Amino acid sequence: MNGRRIVFVGAGGAGLTAAFTLARRAPDAQITVFSKDPVVAYSQCGMPFVLDRKILDFNKLVIYQPPVFKDLGLDVRTSTAIEEIDLDGRAVTTEKGERVEYDRLVIATGSRPFVPPVPGVHLPGVHTLLTLEDGKALYERLKDALNVVIIGGGPIGLETAPAFLDAGAKLTIIERVPQLMPSALDPEMAAIVQAHLEQKGARVITGRGVDSINGTARVESVTCAGEVIPADLVLLSAGIRPNTDLAKQASIDLGVTGGIVVDEYFRVRRNGKVLDDVLAAGDCAEVTGLITGKPVIYAVGSVANRQAKYVADNLLGKKTPYPPVLCPAVCVIGDLHVGNVGLTTHACEQAGITPLTFSARGATRARYYPGGKTVDIKLLSDGDRLVGGQIIGEEGVGGRINVLSLAIGKGMSPADLAGAETCYAPPVSPLIDPLTYAAEMLALKVARAKKSQ
Amino acid sequence: MNGRRIVFVGAGGAGLTAAFTLARRAPDAQITVFSKDPVVAYSQCGMPFVLDRKILDFNKLVIYQPPVFKDLGLDVRTSTAIEEIDLDGRAVTTEKGERVEYDRLVIATGSRPFVPPVPGVHLPGVHTLLTLEDGKALYERLKDALNVVIIGGGPIGLETAPAFLDAGAKLTIIERVPQLMPSALDPEMAAIVQAHLEQKGARVITGRGVDSINGTARVESVTCAGEVIPADLVLLSAGIRPNTDLAKQASIDLGVTGGIVVDEYFRVRRNGKVLDDVLAAGDCAEVTGLITGKPVIYAVGSVANRQAKYVADNLLGKKTPYPPVLCPAVCVIGDLHVGNVGLTTHACEQAGITPLTFSARGATRARYYPGGKTVDIKLLSDGDRLVGGQIIGEEGVGGRINVLSLAIGKGMSPADLAGAETCYAPPVSPLIDPLTYAAEMLALKVARAKKSQ
Repeated sequence: MNGRRIVFVGAGGAGLTAAFTLARRAPDAQITVFSKDPVVAYSQCGMPFVLDRKILDFNKLVIYQPPVFKDLGLDVRTSTAIEEIDLDGRAVTTEKGERVEYDRLVIATGSRPFVPPVPGVHLPGVHTLLTLEDGKALYERLKDALNVVIIGGGPIGLETAPAFLDAGAKLTIIERVPQLMPSALDPEMAAIVQAHLEQKGARVITGRGVDSINGTARVESVTCAGEVIPADLVLLSAGIRPNTDLAKQASIDLGVTGGIVVDEYFRVRRNGKVLDDVLAAGDCAEVTGLITGKPVIYAVGSVANRQAKYVADNLLGKKTPYPPVLCPAVCVIGDLHVGNVGLTTHACEQAGITPLTFSARGATRARYYPGGKTVDIKLLSDGDRLVGGQIIGEEGVGGRINVLSLAIGKGMSPADLAGAETCYAPPVSPLIDPLTYAAEMLALKVARAKKSQ
Repeated sequence: MNGRRIVFVGAGGAGLTAAFTLARRAPDAQITVFSKDPVVAYSQCGMPFVLDRKILDFNKLVIYQPPVFKDLGLDVRTSTAIEEIDLDGRAVTTEKGERVEYDRLVIATGSRPFVPPVPGVHLPGVHTLLTLEDGKALYERLKDALNVVIIGGGPIGLETAPAFLDAGAKLTIIERVPQLMPSALDPEMAAIVQAHLEQKGARVITGRGVDSINGTARVESVTCAGEVIPADLVLLSAGIRPNTDLAKQASIDLGVTGGIVVDEYFRVRRNGKVLDDVLAAGDCAEVTGLITGKPVIYAVGSVANRQAKYVADNLLGKKTPYPPVLCPAVCVIGDLHVGNVGLTTHACEQAGITPLTFSARGATRARYYPGGKTVDIKLLSDGDRLVGGQIIGEEGVGGRINVLSLAIGKGMSPADLAGAETCYAPPVSPLIDPLTYAAEMLALKVARAKKSQ
């Protein structure tokens, strides 16, 4: 490999995993990982389920303890923010003033929850959920909360919603757009999620923004479209923003999404010129969307983790191009598994695609076999290819999203997916899988549309 | 459509489903369906779970009642065996002597359990499990059975095994080959199934045949490799044979598998000459294996059901070629879901393929999330393509088999599968899906093997 000194700024899913992979494959590398956080190597995605007491302790989310880093020869510096990157001098400077030189630098500074510019948003009692500290702080407050407001209908807030309800709080969820999870779901699929949350006791307000968060010493209420909603705890879940301050300050190019522009080898640019010795990956960097070919930011653990392997390859001089990203995802909201992959109808329209769609409701087991669940499926096609899918149910969602991800990723048509054989046993699936049925119906619709053209 | 009078012989998954599809799409067709069985339109695959009392009543397995047939204009003649097919006269004759003419004939006579040529095999108390009557008879006997022997390690017998154990019987399973489920699993994967059954209390004997079934008025014991094993109930589960007597008698060509030879439009042949007006489908007919290109019989409900659509298309004059078959399958044996698709190592060797394989044990959820299960995965490749896979676990098997089925069906390599993005949420999956991991490792093995050539 070119140069032995590798510095990572950030120890999340992209940075730390890449550092681990590199350490295993290049034992002679001198790897330093800086994180502003006191604890690293934990699962952020698990936090809603600790809050909901499915998982008994935040410490269970910590995947590697510091001795593992030492064993691997990794120098992981926690609670150490980087203040400056000196691209010309090939060095970073810590907040403590230490200057550390590198041969290769990886910027993996991640993302942060978006804090909407609303009066009162910085009052005590207004939380975000990103770091383990955030999780622990929320857990402490959760016990005493009587009135909770979640601002934003994104997946992290909705995954956390049952924790508030189970703790006995009165919960209001406010989403500015007229539906929950607008970046993942079409409106009628989001309505299934909304109905589930309402059935569990939440009040859901969509299509109205928050005017202000109110209180003196701490939060007391939220004003939404003129209505004052009591709140002793507020959780912001209104999307994320990439952490790019450090990159921006070093004059590294940012893209239209606000994220760091990288090429397929994760190399950053300065004034349009590719820098061979500086990579960026994870939530802070743009990726290319598979269907649209356009830059996008997917702040999802599985994407970051997947990138880490490519980053390590490229640090080792093995030029492995990172392909465009589809980002299949699933989240668990109460009893519902909510999955999506590719484009929603809205995202299609933004990309100039008028999608043909088919929606089906099926079952996860033979109808005479007890315990089966309903599964709702919506598929989208641009006519030739499948371009997106959404699946919601109490079981059998993840596997079907992965089937769809493979099909969309390989450019298959609805007919291709309909033609794929599926397995059958009464306790495991219906004779005809609902995904197969939906694909068949969409294929017919596509064929009819082509005929009528 | 050519000719309005369509006769189906057999009302199982292929015949009745094709008749239903045809009736819906061609309301003017005059469709007659003959079945030797008194009840049709039920789920054979559900019977093990009625025996095990997961499903409370055999009647729940009946999917359509006779009034539905009438509503659709289908003339379904139950308890009416066909004695003869007159190909030249275009007619069938029932056992009651009625002659019914056809314009198009569909032979869907299904399969029957193989009855091994063992002394005593016809004694009362020796059962097979194919029809609803078989199921009910077994259910009645099950209550009083103290000592049960299952002859054959096929999936139907193994799915039924827990019913005997739960009823308190002492159970012995005898398989002549040195492993259970030899046509679906590699030996070490079958060992997982065997250990599960043993842990539930079954005795499993492999690699030894049955010498005789003994008794006077009814079965009393089974002799296996010289050992006399007490038995008041015996279940034969030693594979199936296609029902071809009627076809054979009409001089319709049979193939190397013993099944009826059909072309891609399900048309049979007489003395090598294709007959345009006679189709055969379901367990009685050969299909072409996707990987080997060779004829094979898959007596599986999902395959028969899938064929029905193509049969209906072809009866309607819409020539839709039926593609080669991969036959993904899953069965449920106690707590285990046991899935397979494509070729086993043994089947590879028979086809002249020396497979590269990788076996992985993974988890179905994030390791810190409660309730996750172990999943065992084995993948096989011929170097370029994935050619088979086996997955065993208490959950998450069916979805992954379907991913594999899509990948193998589309001729993907292990690297293609490893490159597919998968969704992630701690309660639904690990960060890296075990199937992705297995595919990655197999891709590495394939790359190394190519390099060393």
